[in-house]
Amino acid sequence: MGTKYEANPGQEGPMSVALGAARAAAARGEVPVGAVIVDADGTVLAADGNRTREHSDPTAHAEMLVIRAAAARLGSERLTGCDLYVTLEPCPMCAAAISAARIRRLYYGASDPKSGGVEHGPRIFAAASCHHRPEVYPDISASPAAALLREFFAARR
Amino acid sequence: MGTKYEANPGQEGPMSVALGAARAAAARGEVPVGAVIVDADGTVLAADGNRTREHSDPTAHAEMLVIRAAAARLGSERLTGCDLYVTLEPCPMCAAAISAARIRRLYYGASDPKSGGVEHGPRIFAAASCHHRPEVYPDISASPAAALLREFFAARR
Repeated sequence: MGTKYEANPGQEGPMSVALGAARAAAARGEVPVGAVIVDADGTVLAADGNRTREHSDPTAHAEMLVIRAAAARLGSERLTGCDLYVTLEPCPMCAAAISAARIRRLYYGASDPKSGGVEHGPRIFAAASCHHRPEVYPDISASPAAALLREFFAARR
Repeated sequence: MGTKYEANPGQEGPMSVALGAARAAAARGEVPVGAVIVDADGTVLAADGNRTREHSDPTAHAEMLVIRAAAARLGSERLTGCDLYVTLEPCPMCAAAISAARIRRLYYGASDPKSGGVEHGPRIFAAASCHHRPEVYPDISASPAAALLREFFAARR
């Protein structure tokens, strides 16, 4: 991963919104991951959870949905100055989209050794060819985010 | 990259459709990349070109648009047995989406040393954690695909 930063208490507000979106995803039968984008003033531009099943869309991860919604709202391909909060370490697709969108800071909850793409797997932001690296803040509200995922998969076994 | 295969002449038909989508993208002022998805019978399920500017969406690469359209058409998150043709080496985001969609074979035109994610950069399919690797066929109609990109960027300098 790129440079790793320490969290501060102000980051729990948006992450609690992301956790709510993750819970709503679980209630819809989707893998419970939620994401939020806030602008530089802290205004929430978009919040959503996974909708891959609902939309029959393998790209409909929470991060992708909020990036698309926030970019549409701003009328810009680039979310310069915006921060993204997500309950789980982004996969390689989402990490690359976060870079393409020029997200300023990425805050995430639980690590994902199996499918993550920030500190695991292809480590998207560490590639020399990565054109934009957000500041990365892992382990924000990681326990409730991980618990949601554990409960979801345990119920399906 | 994963296993690399040789092309055969039957692969030029879908790629010519992808090149047409790339030309249409250029005419819209978008980076000229086009993509096509065909099912196991060779039926075209979706064809499109980049629309990042038009949609104000950093994720609206040609590959993402055809994956989303084909999955919606089939009503399935997984495009098992389907093949994707794209005029340029997919970026890391698109390569990871191709894996997530369980695309069977990936055919692409020009290599992209600067932003590619298959044989360059994070080499998505080579990661140990990559859950699905398509067969990869590079250099299909690479010359016209590269020429389109060169002309597009030369005109903007």
